[in-house]
Amino acid sequence: MSNQGFYPPQRLLMGPGPSNVSRRVLEATARPTIGHLDPLFVDFMDATKGLLQWLFRTDNALTLPVSGPGTAGMEACFANLLEPGDEIVICRNGAFGQRMVEMSERMGARVVVVDQDWGRAVDVDAVEAALSVHPDARILAFVHAETSTGARSDARALARLAREHDCLSLMDCVTSLGGIPVELDAWEVDAAYAGTQKCLSCPPGLSPVSLSERAAARIRAREKPVQSWFMDFSLVMSYWGGGGKRAYHHTAPVNALYGLHEALLVLQEEGLEASWARHERVHGELVAAMEDLGLAFLVPADERLPQLNTVKVPEGVDKAAVRAQLLDEGIEIGAGLGPLAGKVWRVGLMGESARSESVARLHRGLRQALS
Amino acid sequence: MSNQGFYPPQRLLMGPGPSNVSRRVLEATARPTIGHLDPLFVDFMDATKGLLQWLFRTDNALTLPVSGPGTAGMEACFANLLEPGDEIVICRNGAFGQRMVEMSERMGARVVVVDQDWGRAVDVDAVEAALSVHPDARILAFVHAETSTGARSDARALARLAREHDCLSLMDCVTSLGGIPVELDAWEVDAAYAGTQKCLSCPPGLSPVSLSERAAARIRAREKPVQSWFMDFSLVMSYWGGGGKRAYHHTAPVNALYGLHEALLVLQEEGLEASWARHERVHGELVAAMEDLGLAFLVPADERLPQLNTVKVPEGVDKAAVRAQLLDEGIEIGAGLGPLAGKVWRVGLMGESARSESVARLHRGLRQALS
Repeated sequence: MSNQGFYPPQRLLMGPGPSNVSRRVLEATARPTIGHLDPLFVDFMDATKGLLQWLFRTDNALTLPVSGPGTAGMEACFANLLEPGDEIVICRNGAFGQRMVEMSERMGARVVVVDQDWGRAVDVDAVEAALSVHPDARILAFVHAETSTGARSDARALARLAREHDCLSLMDCVTSLGGIPVELDAWEVDAAYAGTQKCLSCPPGLSPVSLSERAAARIRAREKPVQSWFMDFSLVMSYWGGGGKRAYHHTAPVNALYGLHEALLVLQEEGLEASWARHERVHGELVAAMEDLGLAFLVPADERLPQLNTVKVPEGVDKAAVRAQLLDEGIEIGAGLGPLAGKVWRVGLMGESARSESVARLHRGLRQALS
Repeated sequence: MSNQGFYPPQRLLMGPGPSNVSRRVLEATARPTIGHLDPLFVDFMDATKGLLQWLFRTDNALTLPVSGPGTAGMEACFANLLEPGDEIVICRNGAFGQRMVEMSERMGARVVVVDQDWGRAVDVDAVEAALSVHPDARILAFVHAETSTGARSDARALARLAREHDCLSLMDCVTSLGGIPVELDAWEVDAAYAGTQKCLSCPPGLSPVSLSERAAARIRAREKPVQSWFMDFSLVMSYWGGGGKRAYHHTAPVNALYGLHEALLVLQEEGLEASWARHERVHGELVAAMEDLGLAFLVPADERLPQLNTVKVPEGVDKAAVRAQLLDEGIEIGAGLGPLAGKVWRVGLMGESARSESVARLHRGLRQALS
């Protein structure tokens, strides 16, 4: 048992998340804790909710930060929208599509999987074909930005398909939100969940979610209550519902919410479009730097995410030794997951980490490590 | 939509939680975020786990902070230990016993409730009678410290009963841990969950849990996987398991864990026994102060928790106006919950808030508000 304080070093976080958190956001999390039912806190919740609606580009009333990491927000969306026996079509082109399958199966859903190679965007035509032969499907679920592969899928087209086939669309935008366009209302997405530790550059631990009125109606019409009391949106909304009186459900993570609120203010000051443009520009710099080192990307250029890049490990290179050497220099990059383990490095350019200086440091560090 | 920074005031938090968080702990949460798979973080996790074992007074290997508030840790324990159709005996003497019932019913358990008046300890004899006529019961669940009423139950006796009747014991110690003795190994408790925002004086958002080898064996022997992927301890332990390699499950709330670790160091420096004694001493001062104001307690003296006190609202007093006036003075106390709404105030003396100065300020504030 250690009895020493923990003083983490200042890393340059260029893995799949968390990304770097600014001093400004960290200091916001350290403001005095107040009660989760304090009238000042209730006003603050309304402000946070408004900022999340702005971020998701939606008027959805059911927009809130789930009190847990992205995986909790993900499970909350599936748990509220799925009933046992429901049919769901899931697009699986990476680890998070696979996670959707596992969660849905545990909830007793009938799962139809549309597989695609890891490293490629979801095949919209294949999804349309699957929906055509599964007319009973109630939900189409997909990952907008696959953190395990760096592939970007066409969320607008998939949401449109869902609507044409009378399905709700359920979108993972954990890694996309803040880094590339996410337009819930314009795309008519019914449910979306995200994380705070990617392009929002907030500490991990909260999951912004937003559900359309169609999705909310589906929840109200459930035959059985959600199995999870903690995640049941009909209960959570009695606290987050907005307007005056709030009923106690669980104790909100007060200080983590301070950090999220401040991170959203930072993003608002920069502007969403400006943030998207910055991620795109720095991604261009990364591509040039990797090409300079003779390194190739897994994902075809027109399907790449700017904020999450899978770079192929060259033949004969000890991938773990390179990551360890970079970490010695204070730079974290990520390893490959699942079938990509050992084959790629994952280089994140998210939020505060999406800076020209980050690319320059990584360029130098990788050149040394590979020499 | 607000675009202003949120600067909460410094409250004296004397409600049912959160309690006051020291500057030292808040500053720990604001240390630089590092990756959840960083080797330094993995060592830090081992240290945190060691401190939690010390806190729970246990050698249980399955000891970890769940990545969510107390309610998430609660649901995780029930979800892992219960299978559909299992019989469970639940002691209900307040709002959190009622929550146990609701969660267990949603999970498809057959629930036997042993009711007791709100404001009283669980009746051990009634529980023994219930276990005798329900020999198939697999779990006995109870709340050690009922936050809704301020009643303290005999956890040791209840855990012993569970063992005699071949049940696992499942204990809510959200409000007891750190404030009064909690002895998992000496009492042979099989599963316990807590929160960080009570006597540990940490921001809300994490839930320390600990399960015995008997409980872990029950989980390994499940016929069906836990419905919740997020809460499945067999998956969570692949990350928190200890010793070397950790598998990614979900992104840990890195900065919140810094705060918990620091709060545990603070408690270790004071000493657990000294903390218990301080809570007891300050409770005595509160009793004297309330008696001085002619205020009575709901709970009989020998069943009272030192850290959570339900004080009866006198006839003819506007209970909400008193709370509002105290809040104007910067002092938060809690309202009554459920059947106690309007009848009591809940006065917390938890962790950093359990100080003679807190009682003195509340004494002055209440005298003014009641005059």
